[in-house]
Amino acid sequence: MSYKVYLSGEIHSDWRDRIIESCRKKDLNIEFSSAVTDHDASDAAGDVLGEEEKSFWRDHKSAKVNAIRTQNAMKKCDLAVIRFGDKYKQWNAAFDAGFCAALGKPYITLHDEDIVHPLKEVDAGAQAWAQTPEQVVDILEYILKK
Amino acid sequence: MSYKVYLSGEIHSDWRDRIIESCRKKDLNIEFSSAVTDHDASDAAGDVLGEEEKSFWRDHKSAKVNAIRTQNAMKKCDLAVIRFGDKYKQWNAAFDAGFCAALGKPYITLHDEDIVHPLKEVDAGAQAWAQTPEQVVDILEYILKK
Amino acid sequence: MSYKVYLSGEIHSDWRDRIIESCRKKDLNIEFSSAVTDHDASDAAGDVLGEEEKSFWRDHKSAKVNAIRTQNAMKKCDLAVIRFGDKYKQWNAAFDAGFCAALGKPYITLHDEDIVHPLKEVDAGAQAWAQTPEQVVDILEYILKK
Amino acid sequence: MSYKVYLSGEIHSDWRDRIIESCRKKDLNIEFSSAVTDHDASDAAGDVLGEEEKSFWRDHKSAKVNAIRTQNAMKKCDLAVIRFGDKYKQWNAAFDAGFCAALGKPYITLHDEDIVHPLKEVDAGAQAWAQTPEQVVDILEYILKK
Amino acid sequence: MSYKVYLSGEIHSDWRDRIIESCRKKDLNIEFSSAVTDHDASDAAGDVLGEEEKSFWRDHKSAKVNAIRTQNAMKKCDLAVIRFGDKYKQWNAAFDAGFCAALGKPYITLHDEDIVHPLKEVDAGAQAWAQTPEQVVDILEYILKK
Amino acid sequence: MSYKVYLSGEIHSDWRDRIIESCRKKDLNIEFSSAVTDHDASDAAGDVLGEEEKSFWRDHKSAKVNAIRTQNAMKKCDLAVIRFGDKYKQWNAAFDAGFCAALGKPYITLHDEDIVHPLKEVDAGAQAWAQTPEQVVDILEYILKK
Amino acid sequence: MSYKVYLSGEIHSDWRDRIIESCRKKDLNIEFSSAVTDHDASDAAGDVLGEEEKSFWRDHKSAKVNAIRTQNAMKKCDLAVIRFGDKYKQWNAAFDAGFCAALGKPYITLHDEDIVHPLKEVDAGAQAWAQTPEQVVDILEYILKK
Amino acid sequence: MSYKVYLSGEIHSDWRDRIIESCRKKDLNIEFSSAVTDHDASDAAGDVLGEEEKSFWRDHKSAKVNAIRTQNAMKKCDLAVIRFGDKYKQWNAAFDAGFCAALGKPYITLHDEDIVHPLKEVDAGAQAWAQTPEQVVDILEYILKK
Repeated sequence: MSYKVYLSGEIHSDWRDRIIESCRKKDLNIEFSSAVTDHDASDAAGDVLGEEEKSFWRDHKSAKVNAIRTQNAMKKCDLAVIRFGDKYKQWNAAFDAGFCAALGKPYITLHDEDIVHPLKEVDAGAQAWAQTPEQVVDILEYILKK
Repeated sequence: MSYKVYLSGEIHSDWRDRIIESCRKKDLNIEFSSAVTDHDASDAAGDVLGEEEKSFWRDHKSAKVNAIRTQNAMKKCDLAVIRFGDKYKQWNAAFDAGFCAALGKPYITLHDEDIVHPLKEVDAGAQAWAQTPEQVVDILEYILKK
Repeated sequence: MSYKVYLSGEIHSDWRDRIIESCRKKDLNIEFSSAVTDHDASDAAGDVLGEEEKSFWRDHKSAKVNAIRTQNAMKKCDLAVIRFGDKYKQWNAAFDAGFCAALGKPYITLHDEDIVHPLKEVDAGAQAWAQTPEQVVDILEYILKK
Repeated sequence: MSYKVYLSGEIHSDWRDRIIESCRKKDLNIEFSSAVTDHDASDAAGDVLGEEEKSFWRDHKSAKVNAIRTQNAMKKCDLAVIRFGDKYKQWNAAFDAGFCAALGKPYITLHDEDIVHPLKEVDAGAQAWAQTPEQVVDILEYILKK
Repeated sequence: MSYKVYLSGEIHSDWRDRIIESCRKKDLNIEFSSAVTDHDASDAAGDVLGEEEKSFWRDHKSAKVNAIRTQNAMKKCDLAVIRFGDKYKQWNAAFDAGFCAALGKPYITLHDEDIVHPLKEVDAGAQAWAQTPEQVVDILEYILKK
Repeated sequence: MSYKVYLSGEIHSDWRDRIIESCRKKDLNIEFSSAVTDHDASDAAGDVLGEEEKSFWRDHKSAKVNAIRTQNAMKKCDLAVIRFGDKYKQWNAAFDAGFCAALGKPYITLHDEDIVHPLKEVDAGAQAWAQTPEQVVDILEYILKK
Repeated sequence: MSYKVYLSGEIHSDWRDRIIESCRKKDLNIEFSSAVTDHDASDAAGDVLGEEEKSFWRDHKSAKVNAIRTQNAMKKCDLAVIRFGDKYKQWNAAFDAGFCAALGKPYITLHDEDIVHPLKEVDAGAQAWAQTPEQVVDILEYILKK
Repeated sequence: MSYKVYLSGEIHSDWRDRIIESCRKKDLNIEFSSAVTDHDASDAAGDVLGEEEKSFWRDHKSAKVNAIRTQNAMKKCDLAVIRFGDKYKQWNAAFDAGFCAALGKPYITLHDEDIVHPLKEVDAGAQAWAQTPEQVVDILEYILKK
């Protein structure tokens, strides 16, 4: 069995690498996708299309270019993992969760216990709530087993 | 022309009332919907189904009951207004934006300029960004005019 | 706010009447739908189309006529309540739950605690699990409130 | 021609193996999928996410993890075979049938004659009713022939 | 309960009138729709758009104008009745049956026993096969009863 | 029978009024919708959201506000009429035609013979090509007749 | 470029072979699908599931087994060719055309000029009308060219 | 990561070749599709089906044959690039943009600044506006990077 897994959210810790690396070691047949996780490159994604004076439009153009990649990945994935860290607003992660929910794509949330309350709507639509990347890997291994 | 408009997000300011009241005064034929905006009632939505010791499950049950109402409203609306205030995580508002985006439901965001950057993915999927309820009303009036 | 609620499952107790009656008393704007709950009439739904010697085909014809009514009701409803009693196989109720799940229609299960384990897949797709009709009514009242 | 076939239901007899083995012998190009059929592993699918005191929540977490696998398999399959044995409630099998019906996925039921009446709604949505795994294999061979 | 019923097929007998009249007498809340059943008007539906020398294009223009009406009616109906008489090719009736099948719209076929074999694919997708308009009315009365 | 008809395209001639007026006289039960046809108001639709120095962004904001209205109207209509006049680029009319085609919404084109060749892709997706508003009215009258 | 082409209709002439053979010679990358075209095997498709006394049920079971294959092929195809010969009712071919139309699958009809009038509704939904298999091959070659 | 990119619009300049060539050089894993870009062949696409006296019908037949190819390519693509040059009506390009918008397929427009105003509705639905093929290639390279 093969799976496409979309990894959404926090880009300032190594959770993606830990999941990907562990799945490789366990020989799970998973194709991972993700937004571009280089923060500066992501913010500048639309710069090639011309300079903007207003930061709103610079952000707008970059976010729309990024959406080509992320929404395509969500539409094609079998499962998403949505990670919330302890910093920043991370509204894009919650947006992705809502996007997956409306598409009927199952997703697993990955976050600490102290943000359970503000994430209750996001968790309510999830198939599972994990607190560590290792738990996510265990679930993936279980789902993909013969 | 009649419209169904879903009002999502912040529940600690009077933005909903200002929009609804202004639309009534302008005689716009709009049916508004919303999550239950009484914070305590919303948190307790699932309590009738039995007590929980873990706050995760209490939240879970309430959030799922609330989702019956909110996702129904989003599926039926012609347009959503998604409001981000200056407090709290407001991940549910971003979740609703993603949900609308995936359903192909147009939405207008309503927020101050200082959170433009963290909201760029949410704004990228919006049909308009407003900074005041009055701007939203102006747009609604325009859209609904003969 | 008005809602369409489909009531599926057990036909040998008065749970439907209790829900409908309570909602009427509370003045909730709900249009209820249901399969034909007269057991004999339901089994004979296809008899008008001609006699069958094999009971399989008699059942088949009646079940298909009934499906016109029930699947139409599910496609149009805003919410379903799926009731499992303590007798019979009740596979039609579980079938309806799966049907709703695939359509993205939210449903509430209504059953006693002693059948929680065999119903775990059905409950996993539900927005709520209630044990009494009164709990269902409370949820409906909450969802439909202003 | 190649096919994806989802095998749902009873896990206490060898019907899956008999179908799979016969199809292999006949060189049919079929990729089979299924829920995890190890009963204990299936019940424990969510345990890695943390212990629960209430059996409802343990079941809930496991059933949701299992649903990632089963609903994905149903969405991708060309055909499902839904097996009902003579023991247990088997509501998950009827749930899967309803799920397939709503998705427009054709399915074959596989069960003895003595449960024809309680399964009439499930059979009414099926493309065929088989009583033995061998009949299922014959149908598969026919469908896949050049 | 109210229903929208689309009546497709044969235009040279009074089966439509018999169904409509009987449903009126029984006070069933049904809104019937149909193709334009005046044969000459139907063939001339596109003539207003300009004359054609080739009969293929005259037919083409008329058939496309008629399809605006019939496909709209099928998309909106709750149920279709597809009638095959004993004359003409009636490919349009079979086309409508296939159209309904792909949309997931339930339909009842209405035809004599002597054409059961050539109609087997059409009947296979139907919820019921009736031989008289009266049987259709009985089914409608049953489906719409409280 | 009642219909929703969306009128798209040229805003510099009186074709909309002629169609609407004639349908009223013939007592056809049609609800017409349209983009805002006041050219200046349409170009300024987004101005309330703040001034822009670049004309691209001014246009962008206005076009997105207008799209709320037009795409909603197209999703809800039963039929669209797409008018091409003899001036301007009219890419929005062709865009609307493509939008309707992908949604499976039938549309009638309304244009002179001298632009048949550049409109061939648009006409290929249409149910009819009319050259005068009167022909459109005749088609509407035919479609809506009892 | 590769294509999946479904060949529907007449089984008593060699039109399928002529199309397939010509496409092979031209090296077109097309995967063809079709109903089982062995008439007797097709009529007996459901016999393995048990004998029936009524020919209606024998036909019914066989037609439903065949529908697994044909509807799957239509859902997966890029293009269908629907052939009407000069014998038999061929309602299954018209059913397939309607099925494709509702799915938004393009199809080409293949039939002689003398049946243009009764096929006008079927032709109205087609992308092309061909009179010989060679014309179909020419169209396929054109569509698939680099 | 691999992508399917549909290139729509202008056929009289070398923009397609420049994009395809640059992507090849950068080793991007992209499968490009397009309408048949040989103008005369495209206009004659339907000629094999028989001569027409009226140019409308010749155009009609060719455009419908071409639509088999183009609409298939749009339904399958991950991204479209829609090019508007400085000549001709190019309504087919705007039609394709609307078609993509309704399907939820992201597209990039490629055109000069002097036609920004008439293209505002088309640009409003786009994920990006590029002025040179090189900008398109930069965006593609960014989206497809690891």
